[in-house]
Amino acid sequence: MASESGKLWGGRFVGTVDPIMEKFNSSITYDQHLWEVDVQGSKAYSRGLEKAGLLTKTEMDQILQGLDKVAEEWAQGTFKLNPNDEDIHTANERRLKELIGETAGKLHTGRSRNDQVVTDLRLWMRQNCSTLSALLRELIRTMVDRAEAERDILFPGYTHLQRAQPIRWSHWILSHAVALTRDSERLLEVQKRINVLPLGSGAIAGNPLGVDRELLRAELNFGAITLNSMDATSERDFVAEFLFWASLCMTHLSRLAEDLILYGTKEFNLVQLSDAYSTGSSLMPQKKNPDSLELIRSKAGRVFGRCAGLLMTLKGLPSTYNKDLQEDKEAVFEVSNTMSAVLQVATGVISTLQIHRENMARALSPDMLATDLAYYLVRKGMPFRQAHEASGKAVFMAETRGVALNQLSLQELQTISPLFSGDVSHVWDYGHSVEQYAALGGTARSSVDWQIGQVRALLGAQQA
Amino acid sequence: MASESGKLWGGRFVGTVDPIMEKFNSSITYDQHLWEVDVQGSKAYSRGLEKAGLLTKTEMDQILQGLDKVAEEWAQGTFKLNPNDEDIHTANERRLKELIGETAGKLHTGRSRNDQVVTDLRLWMRQNCSTLSALLRELIRTMVDRAEAERDILFPGYTHLQRAQPIRWSHWILSHAVALTRDSERLLEVQKRINVLPLGSGAIAGNPLGVDRELLRAELNFGAITLNSMDATSERDFVAEFLFWASLCMTHLSRLAEDLILYGTKEFNLVQLSDAYSTGSSLMPQKKNPDSLELIRSKAGRVFGRCAGLLMTLKGLPSTYNKDLQEDKEAVFEVSNTMSAVLQVATGVISTLQIHRENMARALSPDMLATDLAYYLVRKGMPFRQAHEASGKAVFMAETRGVALNQLSLQELQTISPLFSGDVSHVWDYGHSVEQYAALGGTARSSVDWQIGQVRALLGAQQA
Amino acid sequence: MASESGKLWGGRFVGTVDPIMEKFNSSITYDQHLWEVDVQGSKAYSRGLEKAGLLTKTEMDQILQGLDKVAEEWAQGTFKLNPNDEDIHTANERRLKELIGETAGKLHTGRSRNDQVVTDLRLWMRQNCSTLSALLRELIRTMVDRAEAERDILFPGYTHLQRAQPIRWSHWILSHAVALTRDSERLLEVQKRINVLPLGSGAIAGNPLGVDRELLRAELNFGAITLNSMDATSERDFVAEFLFWASLCMTHLSRLAEDLILYGTKEFNLVQLSDAYSTGSSLMPQKKNPDSLELIRSKAGRVFGRCAGLLMTLKGLPSTYNKDLQEDKEAVFEVSNTMSAVLQVATGVISTLQIHRENMARALSPDMLATDLAYYLVRKGMPFRQAHEASGKAVFMAETRGVALNQLSLQELQTISPLFSGDVSHVWDYGHSVEQYAALGGTARSSVDWQIGQVRALLGAQQA
Amino acid sequence: MASESGKLWGGRFVGTVDPIMEKFNSSITYDQHLWEVDVQGSKAYSRGLEKAGLLTKTEMDQILQGLDKVAEEWAQGTFKLNPNDEDIHTANERRLKELIGETAGKLHTGRSRNDQVVTDLRLWMRQNCSTLSALLRELIRTMVDRAEAERDILFPGYTHLQRAQPIRWSHWILSHAVALTRDSERLLEVQKRINVLPLGSGAIAGNPLGVDRELLRAELNFGAITLNSMDATSERDFVAEFLFWASLCMTHLSRLAEDLILYGTKEFNLVQLSDAYSTGSSLMPQKKNPDSLELIRSKAGRVFGRCAGLLMTLKGLPSTYNKDLQEDKEAVFEVSNTMSAVLQVATGVISTLQIHRENMARALSPDMLATDLAYYLVRKGMPFRQAHEASGKAVFMAETRGVALNQLSLQELQTISPLFSGDVSHVWDYGHSVEQYAALGGTARSSVDWQIGQVRALLGAQQA
Repeated sequence: MASESGKLWGGRFVGTVDPIMEKFNSSITYDQHLWEVDVQGSKAYSRGLEKAGLLTKTEMDQILQGLDKVAEEWAQGTFKLNPNDEDIHTANERRLKELIGETAGKLHTGRSRNDQVVTDLRLWMRQNCSTLSALLRELIRTMVDRAEAERDILFPGYTHLQRAQPIRWSHWILSHAVALTRDSERLLEVQKRINVLPLGSGAIAGNPLGVDRELLRAELNFGAITLNSMDATSERDFVAEFLFWASLCMTHLSRLAEDLILYGTKEFNLVQLSDAYSTGSSLMPQKKNPDSLELIRSKAGRVFGRCAGLLMTLKGLPSTYNKDLQEDKEAVFEVSNTMSAVLQVATGVISTLQIHRENMARALSPDMLATDLAYYLVRKGMPFRQAHEASGKAVFMAETRGVALNQLSLQELQTISPLFSGDVSHVWDYGHSVEQYAALGGTARSSVDWQIGQVRALLGAQQA
Repeated sequence: MASESGKLWGGRFVGTVDPIMEKFNSSITYDQHLWEVDVQGSKAYSRGLEKAGLLTKTEMDQILQGLDKVAEEWAQGTFKLNPNDEDIHTANERRLKELIGETAGKLHTGRSRNDQVVTDLRLWMRQNCSTLSALLRELIRTMVDRAEAERDILFPGYTHLQRAQPIRWSHWILSHAVALTRDSERLLEVQKRINVLPLGSGAIAGNPLGVDRELLRAELNFGAITLNSMDATSERDFVAEFLFWASLCMTHLSRLAEDLILYGTKEFNLVQLSDAYSTGSSLMPQKKNPDSLELIRSKAGRVFGRCAGLLMTLKGLPSTYNKDLQEDKEAVFEVSNTMSAVLQVATGVISTLQIHRENMARALSPDMLATDLAYYLVRKGMPFRQAHEASGKAVFMAETRGVALNQLSLQELQTISPLFSGDVSHVWDYGHSVEQYAALGGTARSSVDWQIGQVRALLGAQQA
Repeated sequence: MASESGKLWGGRFVGTVDPIMEKFNSSITYDQHLWEVDVQGSKAYSRGLEKAGLLTKTEMDQILQGLDKVAEEWAQGTFKLNPNDEDIHTANERRLKELIGETAGKLHTGRSRNDQVVTDLRLWMRQNCSTLSALLRELIRTMVDRAEAERDILFPGYTHLQRAQPIRWSHWILSHAVALTRDSERLLEVQKRINVLPLGSGAIAGNPLGVDRELLRAELNFGAITLNSMDATSERDFVAEFLFWASLCMTHLSRLAEDLILYGTKEFNLVQLSDAYSTGSSLMPQKKNPDSLELIRSKAGRVFGRCAGLLMTLKGLPSTYNKDLQEDKEAVFEVSNTMSAVLQVATGVISTLQIHRENMARALSPDMLATDLAYYLVRKGMPFRQAHEASGKAVFMAETRGVALNQLSLQELQTISPLFSGDVSHVWDYGHSVEQYAALGGTARSSVDWQIGQVRALLGAQQA
Repeated sequence: MASESGKLWGGRFVGTVDPIMEKFNSSITYDQHLWEVDVQGSKAYSRGLEKAGLLTKTEMDQILQGLDKVAEEWAQGTFKLNPNDEDIHTANERRLKELIGETAGKLHTGRSRNDQVVTDLRLWMRQNCSTLSALLRELIRTMVDRAEAERDILFPGYTHLQRAQPIRWSHWILSHAVALTRDSERLLEVQKRINVLPLGSGAIAGNPLGVDRELLRAELNFGAITLNSMDATSERDFVAEFLFWASLCMTHLSRLAEDLILYGTKEFNLVQLSDAYSTGSSLMPQKKNPDSLELIRSKAGRVFGRCAGLLMTLKGLPSTYNKDLQEDKEAVFEVSNTMSAVLQVATGVISTLQIHRENMARALSPDMLATDLAYYLVRKGMPFRQAHEASGKAVFMAETRGVALNQLSLQELQTISPLFSGDVSHVWDYGHSVEQYAALGGTARSSVDWQIGQVRALLGAQQA
């Protein structure tokens, strides 16, 4: 008889079950990651039941001690799963019953797996997002420290991957660090929406037994309680938001990785990845490959795939709980693990990366100052459009004659515009060039210092 | 000669251009939507140039008046595009030059299309998101008003699309309204990150001419300025966030639409869509189809597709500006238009929807009180697990005997548990049932009132 | 010293390795699924080396026997992984060396992990896709058998989820079966493109040692060899195609699942899912939830997410092998497993589903014959547009009077059109209605029989 | 009164319509692209009606002539849309009625917009895919021609963007051409599934009036007819397949674009994009940006976004027609246009690209022959693993001493292995190196010629 199997809906079913269906339906292989928060949630709930008069103090204590024992077994790796433990909630309650007997059957009073699982997931994600938050700030901090230390190094800034203008190496580092501060800010917002308690929503209609949700909230240290029981058990916004947060953060890291892969080619030769983050080739002995960066770049796809998958699963779903929602957990676990590894590896890459200063200096060329040449004319009163065209003619003239832009003679320049005079020679100094860009956000030293200060202040505020 | 074409890089090129490439490269067909904000940005920038001494007061006035004239032509539909106007920036500056002569050539001093276009887009989105924000709050308000008016109507709450427990109709409305309040909150956060000024970042290195970015910020009423010029010109987080905001909001609306499509079938027959939001069949005269709801549901795909497309475009892009970023605008325009229509149609649907009260009442059945039957036993002291099983046996017994659950005699119930007594009859009152769910977030009237208050307070706070 | 670690690039590296990076880089946790095909590929390759004179017959035999031993250990679960086994290729070769000594070091001659891994993956997928192909045909066959058995049962055909026209139940089953035949056809095309041998491509330039790729192809029973070594090692079209195949197949199954979930509600009440494919509620004793169908529906998201993730990873990747490609395998394994479970569960659902014939009959109503009423007038010579309008008026009249459409009197109908006469009564026969739809593809019995024949013929051809 | 509006369901509705809903619902702004195929389909259908006795010969001729007139108006740009023309089908039939009177009302007999629109879309896509097919083959042909002309040029082959081994430039071109041949093959398969006629399926149940679908098929030159009317009107596999075909093709082109962007940097300096496919900078006069290639790369996102959007829209949709399906057309039109432009621009880029032969030669360096050095030892009898390690030691020795790999003296090499002797000097010849890779698919000249022959044969076969 089916009820002997100990299934939660024991009294009802008469059919038999397809073993493939059983496995298909079961979530225990992955939701056992929730063992600790499941116990934590159940402990709080039993306190709520006691306050509501549904458990005696003795019963509550029995349950609390039993749950501690369950947790201990998990922590020590001695918890034994039964074939009928289809999910972590069933497993823990089954074990609790073995440990303390029939009183265990009171724990689920007024609770549904619908509100239980989403409480567990929020608890797990709250903890996990704190860790990711710290790892992300650590990465940003590493970048800022490096930017501060190396702010006197110049190298080519690229747009469209073409050499554009001389910039500070630190300005490049900060461009990625600043992008990551937005991820850090967004994660705090996601955490705020994760930190809302659904427990006490039951399956759909709410809790009918006088359980005090404010007490549950305080017990579990949530920031707020959910407003509507139907929404509480079936919305997965906080999961979708987390997956999107990770996706956007990964596009940033994929761009950082792309830059460093390029800068580390023999052709650019501006940086060298530490051996600790490179690997060799099974065929070509001379190769040293930037596998760490390629993996970071690639994970943008995987993480976004999970986000896409969840949204597609949610699309058009009838409201309240449907089993479709079971897809949330594997996505969260996989993406959390990926982000944790990616952030740590990225921090390692940045902190051990070697830069080739001489190559950076050598990569600067006078044509990258063509814009500054135009500004020279602008400062002499020529409208920018004409100055841009005049500078373009100088570039063309230099190319045609096969010389560097700064090797055009004054006479040659004057055939283009009579505004050129001897002081044009100041244009050709890269150090002078970058210092012009002193407006906030630019590549002048003062602005780079300002950026460092701003990011440090943000990190401080976010940590608080 | 290419320079005669008036292209911005006139002095440089000698080749000819493939007409398909020209069209492929051009963005004027869609970025002309930015005409107003482009003028607005240029006016602020010319003020900045004047403060920095790069324009005289007279020149600035000339430019400001010229730009007003350009705007007027757009507003009146008399602006004429040239074949060489590849984008809105080029078009407006070209026209300005026709109107005021060479002084127009000073406007772009120190500015790049890289910082110009992203300033324009942020201005456009800031305005547009305000509108969407208001439309979304209007929808939520409509739902809350309706929830308040109809809170005494009960109907079946479904989980897994199976009848679960009696709930208030208003509780269902509020479950969707509450989900939308999160979208409303998230949009405010996105707006905050849109409202940051990139102007003064140039192409990559920043602004070298002493333009005061704080002044530009104040002129254009932005909340802050971007921190790093490389990041400012190449990040599109605010676009990705907006597209994801829309995607998540659309999954909510797709679920609302799905519910209403189901409730509007002949089989459920709980609601009837207004004729204004239905259409007929070209073949079947008796049909009345919920096209409005199906379109809402379907747009979740389109909107998410744009989000997916942008993230894929961003993935692995080398840092700073690449032409790939041109993909941002069509996505923003299309999604904004879609959201505007969807939110208004949804509001119309909700405000004109008819409900079939008698059918709602009739759809409630005693088996939906099986949980309450279990709680009856719980209140008599039986552990919930046993009560659940006992109630399951009662359901099975009723099914086997072909009677409704509430038609089992007391004797029959007592064969299942001796705890059943005469007062079990109270269980079969639906009104009594819902009132039990008085914990916050539940379906009791007090809780529904509390929800209404909470959502109204949120709306008020968000509007402020 | 690094070379002592036995890494493939042993002689080269001097740095140390970050443990998180090691784990991040390692693929052995999942690519060990390839153990069998890796051995298979290596056995074929050693035969190729012998033919090319790079191995003596004795060396080849040593290697073949060693590889058989390796396979045996995997099969018996006795293979022991080392911490340095970063992938299955390294692990197998390491073990081979332990078993047969230095000769093992000859196996990788002219081969790279780049061509090795993609050969392994193709072998694995070839085998797996055959299994999926068979499971898919089994599902289709089950549907067709059922369609044949139940073709005399009528029920409402829905469009826009509104009752549209009476159709055969078998016509509905076949509508899903026919969709799946396209998946079956597509899978054969994907299999054709999987079945192409890349071995002999080396890392990038090809094989320089006279290995005969035709011989390798024949040994491994591939249909063709890849054309270009650079493409061969870095294209993952066959993976992307497989993931998309699965995604499209899953959208079909998600639609099938959606239909059955709806038809199984209390409101539609047309079908009942077997207990074997339902589950109960931990809270509500009366519930029986269609979890199997919800899981099928939900997996469409997961599977598509993997497809989206891979395409995003591939986007913009420099050509030839990059570590990013390592993302392919987990996607393939997860999707293969998912498809295998889904197809078997779907087959189980279809074969055990109960249908409620009386409810199906009862759900037919005269208004669903409004189109036939229009056709009645068409047959009397009225242009269809007028007939459609006339029938619409009849529907409106019936609604207004509160009677069924077939209860309008002849006189009443004649106020709409004088073409109505006594024979209009034939219109109200549902059996007569469906038999009109005798054009190929329609719901008449002859057409349903034709469909069954067509699908059976397709299955036969595909199996061959 | 609503019926006066001329809506198709005129007789039925009594409500009024929200103008935003009207616009939201309307598809005429984009589906007017179908005007030609809509007329084509209607002409065939009127022939079918005549054969079935539902139109007289005279009526049919009237309709055919009227439809020709409608087409003429569209072709000449004189067709005037009415505000009530919600889609192209309604518009064309409305105009037909104006032109020929009540007989027009007979055209839609037995037809539904459900089978009409999908017939139109298949006709449009059939034509369009032929064009895309030809454009794609033209691109491949251009690549193969170029590969043939330049097959004696060597340059570095990269893996992980690190210099790996010398290869022929043509080998690189062919690696991309071969990838595109798979797209070409797949498109033919998609075309086969597009080329199936749904007309005669009605709204859901089929056609009840004896219309001969084989005749319709022959009239419209389709390859087959759809098997099941419910599936025929609601499946959009052919659209999803087309969008995925485009997505995968675009990932190939994005990788080609990425390679060329890199090769065109100052740092790689291997190729130079024609001016016709480059653009300049509005700020930096010296810049020449590869906008064409960046746009190609970026479109991979857009195209895939449409594919993702459609699949998400289809997910979980109840079977048969739902208005959600209206999302198909804009996706098809946009992606078709994008692919047409991308393929033509890519062909232009390839055919006008300049290559820098001397830089290609100069970029080859002795360390790229380290693998060949290992093979040298293998040929002398050393197991590959030892040879790989020995070669790695030589690389390390050369690096340590600061010399090129080929500048190590024989004595130095012999400290690594006594197998080195004077003939090691042959290893350092790049031309000799590539010729070793003579296995099919490798970079030897014979193999490159074989590849060219294979691709040409494929193109020939596909064209036929």
